[in-house]
Formats: sequence, structure tokens, C-alpha cells
Amino acid sequence: MATAPEVIRGTTNPMVTPILTDLYQFTMAYAYWKARKHHERAVFDLYFRKSPFGGEYTVFGGLEECIRFIANFKFKEDDISYLRSVMPTCEGGFFDYLRGIDCSDVEIYAIPEGSVVFPKVPLMIVEGPVAVVQLLETPFVNLVNYASLVTTNAARHRFVAGKSKTLLEFGLRRAQGPDGGISASKYCYVGGFDATSNVAAGKLFGIPLRGTHSHAFVSSFMSLDEIVDKELKSCDGSRVCNDFVNLVQAWLRKLQFTDSLHGVFGETNQSELAAFTSYALAFPKEFLALVDTYDVIRSGIPNFCAVALALNDLGYKASGIRLDSGDLAYLSIQARKFFCTIEKEFIVSGFGRTLITASNDLNEETLDHLNKQGHEVDSYGIGTYLVTCYSQAALGCVFKLVEINNQPRIKLSEDVTKVSIPCKKRCFRLYGREGYPLVDMMTGENEPPPKVGERILCRHPFSESKRAYVVPQQVEELLKCYWPGKSHKLREELPPLNKIRDRCLQQLEQMRPDHMRRLNPTPYKVSVSGKLYDFIHFLWLNEAPVGELQ
Amino acid sequence: MATAPEVIRGTTNPMVTPILTDLYQFTMAYAYWKARKHHERAVFDLYFRKSPFGGEYTVFGGLEECIRFIANFKFKEDDISYLRSVMPTCEGGFFDYLRGIDCSDVEIYAIPEGSVVFPKVPLMIVEGPVAVVQLLETPFVNLVNYASLVTTNAARHRFVAGKSKTLLEFGLRRAQGPDGGISASKYCYVGGFDATSNVAAGKLFGIPLRGTHSHAFVSSFMSLDEIVDKELKSCDGSRVCNDFVNLVQAWLRKLQFTDSLHGVFGETNQSELAAFTSYALAFPKEFLALVDTYDVIRSGIPNFCAVALALNDLGYKASGIRLDSGDLAYLSIQARKFFCTIEKEFIVSGFGRTLITASNDLNEETLDHLNKQGHEVDSYGIGTYLVTCYSQAALGCVFKLVEINNQPRIKLSEDVTKVSIPCKKRCFRLYGREGYPLVDMMTGENEPPPKVGERILCRHPFSESKRAYVVPQQVEELLKCYWPGKSHKLREELPPLNKIRDRCLQQLEQMRPDHMRRLNPTPYKVSVSGKLYDFIHFLWLNEAPVGELQ
Repeated sequence: MATAPEVIRGTTNPMVTPILTDLYQFTMAYAYWKARKHHERAVFDLYFRKSPFGGEYTVFGGLEECIRFIANFKFKEDDISYLRSVMPTCEGGFFDYLRGIDCSDVEIYAIPEGSVVFPKVPLMIVEGPVAVVQLLETPFVNLVNYASLVTTNAARHRFVAGKSKTLLEFGLRRAQGPDGGISASKYCYVGGFDATSNVAAGKLFGIPLRGTHSHAFVSSFMSLDEIVDKELKSCDGSRVCNDFVNLVQAWLRKLQFTDSLHGVFGETNQSELAAFTSYALAFPKEFLALVDTYDVIRSGIPNFCAVALALNDLGYKASGIRLDSGDLAYLSIQARKFFCTIEKEFIVSGFGRTLITASNDLNEETLDHLNKQGHEVDSYGIGTYLVTCYSQAALGCVFKLVEINNQPRIKLSEDVTKVSIPCKKRCFRLYGREGYPLVDMMTGENEPPPKVGERILCRHPFSESKRAYVVPQQVEELLKCYWPGKSHKLREELPPLNKIRDRCLQQLEQMRPDHMRRLNPTPYKVSVSGKLYDFIHFLWLNEAPVGELQ
Repeated sequence: MATAPEVIRGTTNPMVTPILTDLYQFTMAYAYWKARKHHERAVFDLYFRKSPFGGEYTVFGGLEECIRFIANFKFKEDDISYLRSVMPTCEGGFFDYLRGIDCSDVEIYAIPEGSVVFPKVPLMIVEGPVAVVQLLETPFVNLVNYASLVTTNAARHRFVAGKSKTLLEFGLRRAQGPDGGISASKYCYVGGFDATSNVAAGKLFGIPLRGTHSHAFVSSFMSLDEIVDKELKSCDGSRVCNDFVNLVQAWLRKLQFTDSLHGVFGETNQSELAAFTSYALAFPKEFLALVDTYDVIRSGIPNFCAVALALNDLGYKASGIRLDSGDLAYLSIQARKFFCTIEKEFIVSGFGRTLITASNDLNEETLDHLNKQGHEVDSYGIGTYLVTCYSQAALGCVFKLVEINNQPRIKLSEDVTKVSIPCKKRCFRLYGREGYPLVDMMTGENEPPPKVGERILCRHPFSESKRAYVVPQQVEELLKCYWPGKSHKLREELPPLNKIRDRCLQQLEQMRPDHMRRLNPTPYKVSVSGKLYDFIHFLWLNEAPVGELQ
């Protein structure tokens, strides 16, 4: 916990300013101000109604950005002038009021970022003067919505790929705008990816970077004659190979005349060979080649192996290949065979384990298919489907008023899933004997919290018949104070990104497997206390209009 | 055309810097540099392979941002230091080279932003030193991909909604990150939307803003007693109503006892009435109420009408209502009836035409359903599905090398749709007798361009049997020079946003309707000249490996 006041720097994205919000937040603020209601203390819950991608869990992302945003919340003079111009009928006093606003009187309670979270349970509770908190709705929902969605998507990809695979996020070019790309890189890392291709995200967040070369690099070469500087020092610096091109060509001939590889390939593409050789001369310690520009089996893999074996002569170990098209299962198996044959034929220890990376429009489903077919891929580069969350492009977070002036408020709807849970609440996760979370429970703010070993009634918030008794072996309070406002509470510190990632991975690990599986996962139960249940239904009856059948 | 050099300011988004790119662009740049190949002149085409959303057209967006980006392309010292740290095996000279790079030697030819465009035809042709142009790939594709996708999505929504409807973009909170929201607002406007709720986008781009109030505003009121300041001056300033609340209540009673409305409603929700009255006191000239917090027919509409009629007494004209849930077709028709009854009963001219805005998870399909059912909606507020391009979240632009050192390059693939069209090209749109575009045609750079009235052979780039003769009535060269580099060509000016929007609307208007329809649209033909066709297939045969059936 941080007790001493410290400076919290602003959001990563300089475009996140207090005017990055919907106009109606300002028109409402004005109406509140006109009605002298703007100081009334309101409590809003930020939550979502359904986990994405047909799953039963979500990973919470975006909290840190929200806190950085409010820590620096202040209108600039030119924003005020702009607002004045678009709200010409509003009194000048309102703009003076806006000019004075900050978030020093706002309190924020939140579930730690990177936690596994469930529908209806508030991810954040925001309390403060109604006009100010209303202004935060749009940026908060914007910052949490995509962050949580893409973290969850990354976690799901990791789940299917398995723990032993390396996952690389390659989505920047297909993301929804520049920071669609930067946020994707950040939150995919949190959700369990190992690295990104996005240099800006690497720099901003310290995420490991990965990348090799593209088809264009391969096509840009015509022949080996283009390579002017053919010299390569050995890895240990002890000797110099004066003509690395020659060494590569010698290896290629050797491969062509190797009995166990006979008939696999004939003449390989020479511009590809030139590109690989050039790339190896530039990166002898980390030679990784894209092998599908012409023909993986007949050209790419033999060319790669010739260069890799030449490097091996000089003490370097080639990293591997990338496959970006075709039947990835088949090609990876063929490549592995080729590598193993070479290991055996030429006694190059470890060559059989040369890294195979696959890319090309991968998603949860194609990873699952690859697993079912069997493959030899060690590492996946995933882009479009991951970062745009193609199978479900939005999470649908909402921000609902649950209390104002100490009066609980409920938002009714004919669609029961859209009814909000009133009151400022506390939220608990109850754990069972095997260490798995059993149920999340919301209570009123002043109810006694559930205790370990006690028999506790957990009720479905809206359905009378759904109820269960639970005897928790452990009780965890979910929401912590991340912005104490004037409450003198201790402020939870914002952990660094790798700690958020650790929490995410540890929380995912801790869940009961049937909640996590892709096909027909078991819903995780979210409940309210008996007392809160009664209160919800008391309010409901009072607010709902009495219909007449006509 | 701009002849004098002028300063082009940077991109809208300060996060778009030269390191917002994939790491492999730098590793390739290093390999080019090591091979002394980095200065070789390369030509890349930026294009997409398939129009989105099951349609047969795309609107090109993002060009201006690309030009602003390269106009200010320069590495910062701390970017260089970061790159050095992540590429530790690279020679220092490379970083000196990067330090010196700008885009003064790059040439960009592009189709004007806001144009209707088709698969395979380059939206942009980028020519310059291979290492520099390679670095532009990721940011260019990123900037064009989502911009074009969301502009197209907006155009499609406009097409279904019809020209007479007002379209409002309400997507910020559900967008993929902050600038997912800002770009969405910008490009939805280009694609034919009338306004946005996004204040930051309004300020940045001068887009009209719209917005009213939310459910939270309605729920934040308890009763009419909360309204302290009840005075309202009449619209012309000639008189003052001392108790506007009283006036509203009087109108509500009058409505309750109006025979023609008998039985429609009884007691309305008083907190809703208080919220509407308060909002009207704040915005008497632009009173628009969200009427579905409790019950549209039994509470929201009568409450709205009571306030609107009270305003009418003081010379104000209420704007209208917003429906955000339920059966929008039915509710809008009921609301219209209610308004018309009031116009007749109380002789309030124009009241029947009170504006009805609908929102709530609208998309192309729901708009189409509404049209088929019949409805009375005047205006749509569209969010999630529009801005996230939910039905297809990525366009899939690519950036392919087509020429280097005056040598044409082709990228082959077993999937024929992925074969690239080689050579630096010129692209033309040929128009028919009725003024509709008939076909786009690509030619080699030095071929004589197609002429009006001439019989021209247009060939499918890959399929031998698909060919047609066209006698164009008008020939338009598609690509113009937007960045002349050192070529001394005239630079096309970057038009303001409303001109881009005008071009988009005019181009959409000009298309033959069967290309534009939602169901089974006719594909628009994209072709190459006979000469280019022959050349593609000559290269193809030379590059493709000769297989052996085994």
C-alpha cells in the first residue's frame, strides 16, 4: 500500500483527456449544475453482463489507465472554450465550475487488474459528485472494455495453445487504429503472450520484442551475386570465413546429394537462398527464416538448412523457420523430419529441435484444429483475430447508477439480464475445499462480511428458486481502494505490468477446469446475500409500473 | 495543387511515431543496410483483397494520416537508444543511418481519400529506398485498414437507413481503445453520418456533436420536490413562468383527462417527470428526452409530452425523444400516434413531427428489419456494431513489393487470390455511357493510357478466360501524387474532412445500384491491360517451382 502521496503519471495515450467523452455527459453535468444537484454523492458500478467468446470468464484489464486518467483529470482552457462553443445556451458559471473540477473528491474501489472476473460483479465502483462521476463514464468504459476483451482473448489463445508454446502477438497492422495496436500488444502480454512485434509497445511497456523478415525481403533479392560482403567471423571470434556464400552453396550441394533426403528437393530458388544468406550475415546469432515465399518443402526448408549448417560450421546456432501459409500441421511435421534427418546425417546436436513458428490468420479454432491433427509447431505468431477480437469485437461494459444521496437506485428493464443491482456493495469470492473459487457474492455495504467456515446463503440476484448454501474455506474481498479521494483510506498501489501478468496467469491457473474449457464451460455462479436479494426485490416492486392487461 | 512547399502538421494521434511498426521492419532494414542494399529503389502497392461485410465496394480512408505521418517522419534520440537496446548485435553505423532517415526521397501516389475502391487496385503506391519504405509498411497498413473499414461500414449503414434519416455515431465507449473511438467518429462522418457524441473528435475534426441524457440522469431524480429553481423565461424573453413544474403538472393532468388518450396511461413515474422537467429547465431550446427508463408508453411519452407542451406554452419547441430498448418499430409508431393526437387535440402545429431517435445495438441488419416492419424513427444513434465493425473486424490490407531496382517482382501463392500484381502501375477507371464506372484497369507504368472512345481489352489478372472489350465514355486516372519526394511532380493537396466526406457521398451516389445492394451485389470488375496480363504470366512461369508428381 502506498501511504505517502506520490505523482501518478498520465495515461499512456495522450489523446485520453477529459473531453474524450460523450457530449451527453456534459449536457447532463449542466442539467445537474442548473438543478444544484451536481454535488450530490453518487455511486456507479462498472460491470459487464456476459463473458465474451462464448466463454464463462473474463480477465479484467484497463484499471491502471483509468487511475492514471483521473489522477491527471483537469480541463484545459481550450477544451473549455470548445465546450462553450458547442453548448452556447449554457450559463458561463457552468464553465467556471468545469474549470475547477478534478477527481480529488472521487473514490474508486476496484478488483485488481489481471483478475479473473464474472458478469454482474462490479469491476470498479466509482463514488463522487454526480456531475464529475458522470463525466468519467465514457472514458472508463472505453478504457476497460477493449482492454478486458483483448486480455481475455489472449488468455483463451494461451489456453488452447498450451503452456509450452511460445505465443507472439503480430497484430499491429490489422488493429483498429494505432492504439488499438498498442493496447492489444500490452493486454495480450498480460493475458499470457510472450512477446510482440510492436516496437512502440515494447518501448512503452517493456514487453519483449520478436520479429524476423517478410516475403518482401525474400523477393527483394535476385541472386547470390548481389551479396558483396561475404565475410563472417565465427561465433567465438577465433576465425573468419572469407566466403560464407560459398560455404552455404557447398552445404546445399551436400544436402542435394544426401541419400536420406533424396527426391525431396531439386533446384531451390536462388533469390530465396540469397535472401537467407544475407539475413544470416546480418544476424548470425539469431537466424530465423520465412520459408514459404516459393515452396516450403522444395525450396524454403533446404535453403534454410544450408544456411543453418553453414552457420553451424562457424559455431552459430540457427533459431528456426517461420511458416506463413499452407497446411501448417503437415508442413511443420515435414520440416521436423527434415531437421531430424540432418541432425542424424551430419551429427549436428539439437538440429532436430530447430524452432518452428507458424503464422497466417491463426485463431482459437485453428489452434485447436492443429492440436487435433498433430503438428510440430513450437511457436505461434497471431495477429488479426487476436487483436481485433474478431469473433466478438466488443465486451459491452456498462456504468450504472446504484446509489445517489444514500438512496439506492435500480435500473429496471423488461430484459431481466439488464436489471442493475442497486446499492453501494461489497463483493467477495468464496473458495471451496479444493482451493477453487466457488462463487462470487455481493452484499450491501454495511452487512457483516461472509466468514470462513460459516454456512452462507448465496442467492441468484433475480431468480427466486436459485439459491445455495456455501461453507467457504477462504473468503477474499474483491474490491480494493485504488483512489481514496478524501476518505483517508489507504491507496492500493498500481503494480508494474509484469505483476499484472503474473496475477492473470496465477488466477487463470486457480480456476476449476470445467469453467475454462472451450466447449460448454460450466457457468461460474455469481450471487447476492439474502439481505441484498430481499432489498433488490423490494425496490423492484416499488419502481416497476403496474401493468393492465388490455 | 500545392506548388509551394508548406508545413504539413503531424498525425492526429501523437502515438503514431516511426517506431509504431513491427520489429521485423528494423531487422530487415538492418539486413538491407548490411548488404548495402538499403538505397535500392523499391515500389510497394498497398491494397486489399476482398471488400468487407459481404459487399462489393470499399471506401478508402486514412490517406491524410499517412501523409501527415511521413511528412514528419524522423527518429527521436530515445527511440534510437531503445532500438539499439533491442538489437544489440547490430553495428553502430546502422543507428547513425536510422538517425538520418526521413521521407524526402519517398514518392506516394494514391487514390483520393473518400473514393469508392475495389480489391487488388493499389490504394497507394509507395516508392523509395527499400529500407525506408519497408519501415512504412506497418503504420500505413494500420492507418488505412481500420479507417477504410469503418468508413465503409458507415456508408453501408447510411445506404440501409436511407438519405432522409439522421445518423448519429454513439460508439466511443465500446470502441477498441481511445483512438478506436476517435478514428471511428472521424471516418463514420466521412462515410455519411451526420454527427457524433464524441467531444474529442468533434474538437479535433469539427464534426457536429449530438447528445442528450442517459438512464442514470433519469434515475438520479427521486421526485419533483428536488427541483428548487422553477422559473423559466419564455423563448422570446417577454415573460417569465414562475413555476414551470406546476405548468408541467397541469399539462400532465390535462393529458390524463384527454378522451382520445384515455386508457393509454395512468400514473406516470414521478422521478422521470422530475428528470425531464429539470432537463428542460437546463435546455429549453433543445429538449430531448430518453423515454424508456421505466415504461415508454405508460410513462416516458406522456411525461415527455407534458414537458414539451409546457415548453410550447413558453414558445419553445421540444426536439424529441430517444428510444433505447424494446420494439423500436412498434414504440416509434405508438409515439408518433401520441404526438399526432396531441397536435390535433391541442392544436400544436408540428407536434406530430416531433423527432424520434432510436438507439440500442443497431446495425445494418436491424435497420433493414425496421424498414421492412415499418417505423416512425427519424434518427438513429449507432454504436458498438458500427465502430467495432462487429460483423467483420478487420479489412486485411497488404503492402507488397512489386518492383525493386526496376525489376518487377511477383509474390506467388498456391491461393491465386494471394498472388500479387507486379510492376509499378497506373490505374484507370473506365466509365460507360450511363455515367456509371464500368471497370478499373491497371496498366504498366509506361503503356499508353486507355483513351475515351477507343476499344480496350480488359483482362482478369489471373484467369485466362475472363476478358472483355470496353469503349469508355470517360477515363479517370485513379492515383495522384500526394508526396512527390524528389520527383518535382506537383503535390495533390490534402482536402479538409468535409470535402473528403463530399467525395465519398458523391462517389457512392455514382455507382451502379446493383454493385451497392446488400443482397448478392454484382461484383465490380477489376482488370489489367493485355500487355500487363502477358507480363504477369511470363513472370509467374519463371518464378514458380516446377513440381513433380510423386
